[in-house]
Amino acid sequence: MSAQLLQGLPVARALRERTAQNVAQLHGDGIVPRVAVVVATDNESTGWYVRSIAQQAAKASIHCDVLDLGAQADAAELTAALRALAADDQVHGIILQTPLPAGVDAAQLVRLIPPEKDVDGANPLSFGRLAAGMPAFAAATAQAVIEVLDHYRIPLAGEDVAVIGRSMVVGKPLAQLLLQRDATVTLCHSRTSDLANHTRRASVVVVAAGRAGLLRSEHVGLGSVVVDVGTNVDDQGNLVGDADAASVQSIARALTPVPGGVGTVTTALLMLRTTQSALERSVVPA
Amino acid sequence: MSAQLLQGLPVARALRERTAQNVAQLHGDGIVPRVAVVVATDNESTGWYVRSIAQQAAKASIHCDVLDLGAQADAAELTAALRALAADDQVHGIILQTPLPAGVDAAQLVRLIPPEKDVDGANPLSFGRLAAGMPAFAAATAQAVIEVLDHYRIPLAGEDVAVIGRSMVVGKPLAQLLLQRDATVTLCHSRTSDLANHTRRASVVVVAAGRAGLLRSEHVGLGSVVVDVGTNVDDQGNLVGDADAASVQSIARALTPVPGGVGTVTTALLMLRTTQSALERSVVPA
Repeated sequence: MSAQLLQGLPVARALRERTAQNVAQLHGDGIVPRVAVVVATDNESTGWYVRSIAQQAAKASIHCDVLDLGAQADAAELTAALRALAADDQVHGIILQTPLPAGVDAAQLVRLIPPEKDVDGANPLSFGRLAAGMPAFAAATAQAVIEVLDHYRIPLAGEDVAVIGRSMVVGKPLAQLLLQRDATVTLCHSRTSDLANHTRRASVVVVAAGRAGLLRSEHVGLGSVVVDVGTNVDDQGNLVGDADAASVQSIARALTPVPGGVGTVTTALLMLRTTQSALERSVVPA
Repeated sequence: MSAQLLQGLPVARALRERTAQNVAQLHGDGIVPRVAVVVATDNESTGWYVRSIAQQAAKASIHCDVLDLGAQADAAELTAALRALAADDQVHGIILQTPLPAGVDAAQLVRLIPPEKDVDGANPLSFGRLAAGMPAFAAATAQAVIEVLDHYRIPLAGEDVAVIGRSMVVGKPLAQLLLQRDATVTLCHSRTSDLANHTRRASVVVVAAGRAGLLRSEHVGLGSVVVDVGTNVDDQGNLVGDADAASVQSIARALTPVPGGVGTVTTALLMLRTTQSALERSVVPA
């Protein structure tokens, strides 16, 4: 028995179609949707990720400003850049890229991104608004998990879902999104006593722990759906997820691949949200 | 076999001792801790609760301003009152009492309470900061549950805890507090398919669903601890919890009573937090 692979590409394509419709409407109204990415690192994988955002934006006719302040940037420079972007009516989305220079407090900086421009869902206020049921962008990767599950019509209401990992970028916001969808959510993490005991009873298991090979066949129930949010680099330099795919596939009925799964969806979601933010503001008289 | 009753009074007393120490220090520095309660309802139980806050404040030598704007107050009046309190350096804690007049958006109003004065933990920003591990006041009732568990030395790290109810005043913030303490948390609610399946395996069950008699012996594991956050009024006009106490006591090893359990602790916590807020600000040069 082999599990269905829940590919991210069809999900990303569907999001891009919605983005294109929004862009057409915005251009018709004389508005160019605009996203700004603030970078302050020499990190190679960040550079790669930012280029992929810029490329997707270009393809979608979204203007993308990459503000590379350099790895020596200090908190004052980053604060000034974010304040300027927050105040600029022409900018609809703001993404603050990590890692940040040593000594710079990311938590203080993300608070400068207004929730309506916080397309990455990084501001704790966005998280609070999400939990409170107010309009807000959830952390993009968490939302990408939901987009994948919805695209493949995986039911969530009344289902038991186990989430492994309690980060502010995946586990915690994903729990809020799953609760909104009436799932019963168990949040597991490195201190969970008997992981398999929780995950085997879940119809959906989402693993976002940052540990290659953490999830194996003995952790999943027969016929369950596994969403792998992990992005680890193995000894051979390959990108691998948190699930041991070969092992999990023998029991699960469906699994998202790494690469080509959730990660593929996240960037497409940032573009869609930038257009949504622009549309929201375009209806409000200036 | 009968369960131990985890009384709230000793927990509240311990909090009041800490409050008294803080008040002594503040008075020594010439500072009078001050909490403001904003009311806009004729609701009887709200009136009773506000009087109990005022009485506890008086006993603790904390100044308590009750701003009763009346059941006809509109959003503009409430906004003005909250803005004035937010800007007033003499006010260290702000509590916005519910219910609010019809048509007034509570979610918009609580955002006017600065996190450092949000002793009730009502602002979504407080929730977001809590989840992100930043300094913040958690929703007071959720924190009261933790205070009870800590006082009676109930272990949480690595334990399975089931929370029934997903509100912003108990379930959701409590899940964040429990995660901070390294518990594995399952959030159950009205749409959970098989409640007993989740709650029976938990070493601690917290019920905050607002349904009298919801939790019975078949829902709890032998030797578990049950925290009852419910406040329901029965046919005879008595205050009862969400647990069927007689039934649960035959299986659980410990149970918080209603009344006399968690509710007793919440008001004491509001007082302690008001003094903490005052102390925080007293060290910052004006």
